[in-house]
Amino acid sequence: MTVRVGVIGTGNIGTSHARDLASRVAGATVTALYDADAGKSAALAAELGAVSLPTYEDVIASDRVDAVLVASPDNVHAEQALACLSTGKPTLCEKPLAPVEADARAVVDAEVAVGRRLIMMGFMRRFDPGYVELKSQLGPEGIGDPLIVRNCHRNEIAPYGLDSELSLTNAAIHEIDINRWLVDDEYAWVQVLTGRSGPLTPEEQHDPLFVLLQTTAGTLVEIEMFVQSQLGYEVTCNVTAGLGVAEMGDGSYVTTARARHRGHGLPAQWLGRFQEAYRLQLQGWITHLVTGGPMPGASAWDGFVDSLVANRAIDSLRTGERVEITLPERPALYA
Amino acid sequence: MTVRVGVIGTGNIGTSHARDLASRVAGATVTALYDADAGKSAALAAELGAVSLPTYEDVIASDRVDAVLVASPDNVHAEQALACLSTGKPTLCEKPLAPVEADARAVVDAEVAVGRRLIMMGFMRRFDPGYVELKSQLGPEGIGDPLIVRNCHRNEIAPYGLDSELSLTNAAIHEIDINRWLVDDEYAWVQVLTGRSGPLTPEEQHDPLFVLLQTTAGTLVEIEMFVQSQLGYEVTCNVTAGLGVAEMGDGSYVTTARARHRGHGLPAQWLGRFQEAYRLQLQGWITHLVTGGPMPGASAWDGFVDSLVANRAIDSLRTGERVEITLPERPALYA
Amino acid sequence: MTVRVGVIGTGNIGTSHARDLASRVAGATVTALYDADAGKSAALAAELGAVSLPTYEDVIASDRVDAVLVASPDNVHAEQALACLSTGKPTLCEKPLAPVEADARAVVDAEVAVGRRLIMMGFMRRFDPGYVELKSQLGPEGIGDPLIVRNCHRNEIAPYGLDSELSLTNAAIHEIDINRWLVDDEYAWVQVLTGRSGPLTPEEQHDPLFVLLQTTAGTLVEIEMFVQSQLGYEVTCNVTAGLGVAEMGDGSYVTTARARHRGHGLPAQWLGRFQEAYRLQLQGWITHLVTGGPMPGASAWDGFVDSLVANRAIDSLRTGERVEITLPERPALYA
Amino acid sequence: MTVRVGVIGTGNIGTSHARDLASRVAGATVTALYDADAGKSAALAAELGAVSLPTYEDVIASDRVDAVLVASPDNVHAEQALACLSTGKPTLCEKPLAPVEADARAVVDAEVAVGRRLIMMGFMRRFDPGYVELKSQLGPEGIGDPLIVRNCHRNEIAPYGLDSELSLTNAAIHEIDINRWLVDDEYAWVQVLTGRSGPLTPEEQHDPLFVLLQTTAGTLVEIEMFVQSQLGYEVTCNVTAGLGVAEMGDGSYVTTARARHRGHGLPAQWLGRFQEAYRLQLQGWITHLVTGGPMPGASAWDGFVDSLVANRAIDSLRTGERVEITLPERPALYA
Repeated sequence: MTVRVGVIGTGNIGTSHARDLASRVAGATVTALYDADAGKSAALAAELGAVSLPTYEDVIASDRVDAVLVASPDNVHAEQALACLSTGKPTLCEKPLAPVEADARAVVDAEVAVGRRLIMMGFMRRFDPGYVELKSQLGPEGIGDPLIVRNCHRNEIAPYGLDSELSLTNAAIHEIDINRWLVDDEYAWVQVLTGRSGPLTPEEQHDPLFVLLQTTAGTLVEIEMFVQSQLGYEVTCNVTAGLGVAEMGDGSYVTTARARHRGHGLPAQWLGRFQEAYRLQLQGWITHLVTGGPMPGASAWDGFVDSLVANRAIDSLRTGERVEITLPERPALYA
Repeated sequence: MTVRVGVIGTGNIGTSHARDLASRVAGATVTALYDADAGKSAALAAELGAVSLPTYEDVIASDRVDAVLVASPDNVHAEQALACLSTGKPTLCEKPLAPVEADARAVVDAEVAVGRRLIMMGFMRRFDPGYVELKSQLGPEGIGDPLIVRNCHRNEIAPYGLDSELSLTNAAIHEIDINRWLVDDEYAWVQVLTGRSGPLTPEEQHDPLFVLLQTTAGTLVEIEMFVQSQLGYEVTCNVTAGLGVAEMGDGSYVTTARARHRGHGLPAQWLGRFQEAYRLQLQGWITHLVTGGPMPGASAWDGFVDSLVANRAIDSLRTGERVEITLPERPALYA
Repeated sequence: MTVRVGVIGTGNIGTSHARDLASRVAGATVTALYDADAGKSAALAAELGAVSLPTYEDVIASDRVDAVLVASPDNVHAEQALACLSTGKPTLCEKPLAPVEADARAVVDAEVAVGRRLIMMGFMRRFDPGYVELKSQLGPEGIGDPLIVRNCHRNEIAPYGLDSELSLTNAAIHEIDINRWLVDDEYAWVQVLTGRSGPLTPEEQHDPLFVLLQTTAGTLVEIEMFVQSQLGYEVTCNVTAGLGVAEMGDGSYVTTARARHRGHGLPAQWLGRFQEAYRLQLQGWITHLVTGGPMPGASAWDGFVDSLVANRAIDSLRTGERVEITLPERPALYA
Repeated sequence: MTVRVGVIGTGNIGTSHARDLASRVAGATVTALYDADAGKSAALAAELGAVSLPTYEDVIASDRVDAVLVASPDNVHAEQALACLSTGKPTLCEKPLAPVEADARAVVDAEVAVGRRLIMMGFMRRFDPGYVELKSQLGPEGIGDPLIVRNCHRNEIAPYGLDSELSLTNAAIHEIDINRWLVDDEYAWVQVLTGRSGPLTPEEQHDPLFVLLQTTAGTLVEIEMFVQSQLGYEVTCNVTAGLGVAEMGDGSYVTTARARHRGHGLPAQWLGRFQEAYRLQLQGWITHLVTGGPMPGASAWDGFVDSLVANRAIDSLRTGERVEITLPERPALYA
């Protein structure tokens, strides 16, 4: 069986996903595309032997589409996920589920009403060989229980300008999700600290943000979210645990020395660091659809919780205070 | 189009290849298997929805097989490659093409007689992200021309006992091949030096071997081939070039510290380090067959040259002298 | 000129200091020793050609002593420093100046009354090649202004049992001092967070402690103080700055691989990591005394500020709240 | 007791030695200096409170000089060492003992005639914390017996122009010495291989040189000697041993990342990398003179053997052949 995928949104990440599905993932083919820029989706459709359709609803409804990949702008993810749910087609939805908690909640409620798990969230770090190796080091056979987790998430430059709240809902939400997964726990409170900002930070914005969370078991989680670091793209995660410590680097193979300097390059953006994670996520999703095995990635519930926590972080950024995090009851569908 | 692959040999590496083709490579399916141990191939066939056939000739001849993967013992590679050639089916042949130069030559001659490039050699390091990144650092935009290349190839333990000549034709042949590719040049001479051996080395054998080669452009290439290093599996490659130096490590993501020690683990064997290279090689082969694009890996001619050099290295090991390397003219087919 | 030093306290660190002064520091000699354990000081005196005296006051008063090194238990540092001040003899005082802020303040007041800078504090990290190199990377020529500084300070095991308040006044006080020096700023507030503790932590104690400070310029400083980490001794310091980041490791020379593992050893305790810093501190102190150049290390004022901050950290640990830090006016003597 | 040292030669290294002796080494003082450039030695004498004398013989003969440090050009080391021997004054002689084997031999013969060990050779790497740590890893408690040792010795640029024979007697002689010390064995043969040279290499010269040696126990030792690498100054040493491998890096403390690159700086020249080794060597020499303990560094016999091996390497460079190394009997004085 080959899964015929329709892709909504053919920007950088949507294009990358479509090409991976077409030629680097077993069991998948891309049949239909939509983008607000019709010329862009038409060109990609020609390259991949797919059709470009005039609306995203056409992609979802197409009888040549078995499953949908949503890679559109953040603020329409929830609306499009709801449309997918109404047709019962499995959906891989890029993160975040929604920038606003209520919109994310609406998707969860709709999926619960359907009664089947159809949505997988595109938190691709759960498939990254680095994070997977890091998680495998935790626990009694390894370095013990996690006590303190430090995350750095640095971009070279903010692609659409710096907006501290967007740093939380669009970027730090990766750490919000991956640390829940890494330590297998939920957060009890969040506090966003600001201080001295980098030289490119406009008035009334803050960069880096220093996000501090504590889980219900007491693990402290810290995120340095530095959107305009001028450094390149870099993601690190260091865990202090009860029996040892572990640090995730970037998996580089080659060290080069020239002209009085030895070291590694840093990529300009995230496709370099997480290229393989994206492909593995797609393969995991397709294999799940083909074999009927368990969904391997983050659920809509995860997407909702991550959005809720990002919203509480915004509350903390606005007030300067620590904000408690209370989760609603988890529906049985996500047990 | 889906390429239906028949796999000859379902030992460790053949099984790994078959599973990759079945579920991790776009455009491929596994339809037929053969192994001298029929129970083994039958079990794998059941797992993959393929058939197990009584002889390797049956696999090659099957009308359910479009292309053949040869993963049998070294000494039958050439014979099976010839059989594949006689049917005109594309073949991915595990390394070496043959332990004996003349057998490798016979395959080249047969392919030239067919007049089409059908055989791709399984020198998977050409697909390894580490070697690819290393090669990309060479040249005028990078660290300049390679002057000295140092290779370490260490195994934890020799799986079938230590035989120094086998260390050359079965193991060091990886470095013989990858360094030709890396520096894009042929060897002019080889010398195998022996010295103090490791504690597990039997009388009359040598381990490590220290293989020294020089290319026609003068680049010195050195190989430490240490089969019973007791260390784990490790492959490194360091290049001193005209404008800088580059070192290929193992691409680990996680550093762990416990009990007064901080570091990385080393894998027990090669499937860990080169797992992704094997998959990428298979994907490259299948994509080549589907799209008709250029063959992305080593050719039968490469396999022949590598076997010839390994045979000259054996001459040097036996005599203790430097041995000149003279290549026959390259057939136009491999231009 | 040779400076004749009297050493008070011949435990581990006092003995190490005395031996360094006797044979590894230019311009110094050790002439008198005192320890509560008279046998211990007598043995060391015999080794170094010095005399062992019955009281610490005898050491300070001796006309064979030009300068005094105080290496006694924390709680008598201030009392002994006051005694040294009363004789006008230059003094190198081990850290902390006092566990209790008021005692530290008394020493500052006494030194101000004397009107000369006689006391240098033994915060040896200011002489450590690692910290010196790290500090040299900051600023406009380097990675820019420091925005976030992360410190880890890990011991294998608490030598006298785990006491969280002692973790602050005896151990974390190193980070309290070195970060003031590193970013050249004073702290505005401190908050001590606790969470999940390591497996060796007794009831009602916390380990690790997570100490968060912010300087007046807004730099966030974080300290992981993990006294019973079971890991070995390790100190790291990572700086995120406006133009780049810098990380201080342990300066190891040799990487070793054996039995499927490659890495570095970690020392059991601090003399290994900071051996050279201790020697350089002693040489700096002696050279200052011989040449009359500026005092190269931390002053009594630094020692007082560090004790004050550690006391505010204890307040935070007890209350769970953020505690503001207000410094008294700096006396002109320390301008 | 304070050792009064006279220094012959106040170029870069002589000046560095004199300053170390004056202010960073316990038990030493510098009393007399000589340099062919009298203005240079007079200025340093003024700085250190010493006298500048008109001839090197005056320094050796001065009754204010207890011991002599020879830091003059290579070709007069032997002549000045002989002059020191004639007065019976202990001497620290910079490497090499002589560029020509016969001159080195004359010094050994003269010292044997005196009947006392007076000369210590300035092979400072024997005091380097990196090499000391590396050597400590060898042996049955560590990684076992050394089988293959790889050395890289790279300079940014040849200070006096590139001369391949000088690369052997002046630069590679460091590796010739340190590997004898490291593996505690003598060489059986040497072969110098040349190949592709770096872009700055003039006609008829070779750079890098690839020097291959084998010890009497069979250990293979390899030296990459790259004088005009354009890279900076770098010395590495990697050991493959019977139970593991060890690699000596540069002991850097700080890793810095800026503008898409993370790494370490490389120093422009050797004083950076080996500054501490030089100081430790001087302290070791002075402590030996003060206490009468064993001489801690390389002997005149070591200096002679190193020069002999370098001369055999020149023979190999000229002929392209492997050259056997035969040592004369070691005099009882050096047993």
